[in-house]
Formats: sequence, structure tokens, C-alpha cells
Amino acid sequence: MEKKKNDDGKWRVLSSEYLFREPWFTVRHESVELPTGSRIPDYYVLEYPEWVCVLAVTTDRRFVFVRQYRHGSGHTSYELCAGVCEPEDGTPLVSARRELLEETGFGGGDWSEYMVLSANPGTHSNMTHCFLAIGVEPVSDRHLDVTEDLSVHLLSLDEVRDLLKSGAIEQALHAAPLWRYMAENKLM
Amino acid sequence: MEKKKNDDGKWRVLSSEYLFREPWFTVRHESVELPTGSRIPDYYVLEYPEWVCVLAVTTDRRFVFVRQYRHGSGHTSYELCAGVCEPEDGTPLVSARRELLEETGFGGGDWSEYMVLSANPGTHSNMTHCFLAIGVEPVSDRHLDVTEDLSVHLLSLDEVRDLLKSGAIEQALHAAPLWRYMAENKLM
Repeated sequence: MEKKKNDDGKWRVLSSEYLFREPWFTVRHESVELPTGSRIPDYYVLEYPEWVCVLAVTTDRRFVFVRQYRHGSGHTSYELCAGVCEPEDGTPLVSARRELLEETGFGGGDWSEYMVLSANPGTHSNMTHCFLAIGVEPVSDRHLDVTEDLSVHLLSLDEVRDLLKSGAIEQALHAAPLWRYMAENKLM
Repeated sequence: MEKKKNDDGKWRVLSSEYLFREPWFTVRHESVELPTGSRIPDYYVLEYPEWVCVLAVTTDRRFVFVRQYRHGSGHTSYELCAGVCEPEDGTPLVSARRELLEETGFGGGDWSEYMVLSANPGTHSNMTHCFLAIGVEPVSDRHLDVTEDLSVHLLSLDEVRDLLKSGAIEQALHAAPLWRYMAENKLM
């Protein structure tokens, strides 16, 4: 397989303007030209800060999940703990540790960046940093934002396997690290 | 693990209006109320048609990938063949077979729906139907849209493993079915 740079085929931006610059909704409208000479007059890029999620396993081998309603899909489901990198966090690791602590009260353990994924690289400017946190423990109370309404669930390996096989993990950004964990640890 | 309905915690929509209804960009602005009584005055839902992707394996055990530039992330990378369900397709399976044929010229084989995922259920109204197509063969020329600029790559299992391990598969909607395939077939 030929080694390539990671921006071959890059498009040329002919014009660019912001349609929205709200805290949770920043959209750029661009007119672009492909290397083939084709033009796309109306292309929309969604700008977000970097995101994080955490595949956290407790000292007694439970997997830390949250359950919450998601208004885009209209579905409520089990997910990994996840959130947004705040400017004051400095690094995605700090953001991920903060989110796990705030949403679930768990901390400690050995942390490593496991995967860097995009929700959709066609439209999203940002990446999601997925961390693996092994050996976490309950260390504090939860501190939810007023607009967060979620419950914490400590699931066994069998329960996580059942969720994955039944298709209950719909969020692709969370399904990917969970299936990777199953593949690399030969757990399926 | 307690069995639950899949919409517990659903939000109440207080007002809803379309900000955009363009072919590739349809956005709803809503004001919502959570079961806790908290309100979110500005929530944005991105409406898209259903999407498809295909994990296709040829009769001689090569994996069918495409390589293309993605303007949201600014990265060019290997991806599964993917696309949008057109109304005339009727079912996601028809859309997925059409996309594989148009983008790569491959067809035939045994098809099954492998996963149904969301790029981000917080914001996206649609789901992505990931198909597994085993035993595909070259059956026709490619027919790309004028705005499509992608190359086809038939990769060995070792090459796919290397892409996955090195983090080169950034698209979460494609990383999830690929890691699932590795997990269930014990290939890592």
C-alpha cells in the first residue's frame, strides 16, 4: 500500500463566510473547487471544539456507562461518558478526566489516548479523543450541568457484550472504541 | 441490567422552526424542556436522509476501500464506500448496493445489515446503515458523480489491520464496523 500525505486531493476554497457563530452551532458556508476542476457552490462545514469520550473500567472490572436521551435521534441509550474540551482544560486528557469525574464521580486509574475519531469528516471540523481509563474508582460526588439529565451504570463484560451485539450502542464514536477493546482483548 | 424503553427522559419541544432547508443542509432550531424542568432555549438538530456504508470483501479476501479528501476535517484518508439513501432506492440495502457499484464497480456477494449507527445522536436526525458484503466481484465500470473525486483500493487483511492500529481510519461510522469485524472473526 502506497504511503501518501494526508491531504492529497485537497479542495480550493473560493469563498468562505460564517452563517452562524453560536456557542453550540457554528457553521461556515463555502464555495469550493476540486482538483478535477469541478465546483461545489454550497458546502457547509460545522465547527466544533474538540470532543472527548472515555472507555472506563473500574478496579473490579465493571464498565462505566451513562444513559441519556439524545434529541437528534430521539433515542435514549447507553453511551460512554463524553463531553467537550473547554479552553481552560488545556489538553483533551484533562477534559476527559474532568468529564468522567463530573458525570460519574469516578477518577484515578491509568489513562491513555486510545483512538482519535471524527463523527463525520465531511462536515465536522473537530476530532473526538477517546481515552481508555483502566482501574478507575469512585472518588467524589457527581456534578452535573443543569441541562444534563443522565444516569450512571456499571456494567459487566457480559452486559457490554450484549449491548454491542444487540446494536444498542448507536453512537459510532463510542461503538468504535468498545469494539476495538473487544477485538484487542479477544473478548468476543 | 434493567430493560428500558428507548425514549425514557425524552424532552418536550416548546417551539420548532427550520433555519435552513437546503439539499445538503437542513437545520431545525428548537426550544426544549427536559423532564427535570430545565430548559434549553437554543437547540439545533441537523436533518439528513439515512446514510449507508459497506464493509465489502472480495472473493479473494481483499477489503474494498476508497480514499478521498474530506473538507470538514481537511484530511484525506481511507474509508469504506459510503453514501446517501435516495428516495427512489426504497431500502438502505438498495442504496448500499448502488453506492458500491457506482463508486467501485463491485457487486454480487452475500449482503447483510451489520450495524445501525449514528454519527452523533445529539445533533443528527438520521442513522447510518452499515452493510457487510462478502464475496463481491468487479461487475461494471465506476460511475462517479461529477463532484466525487476518489480512488479505489483493494487491501489485504494485514493492510486493514495496520490502518486500524495506526489510527488511519478516522471516520467513526467506518471504524466501528471494521473493529467489529476484527473482534467477531478474531482477527487481531
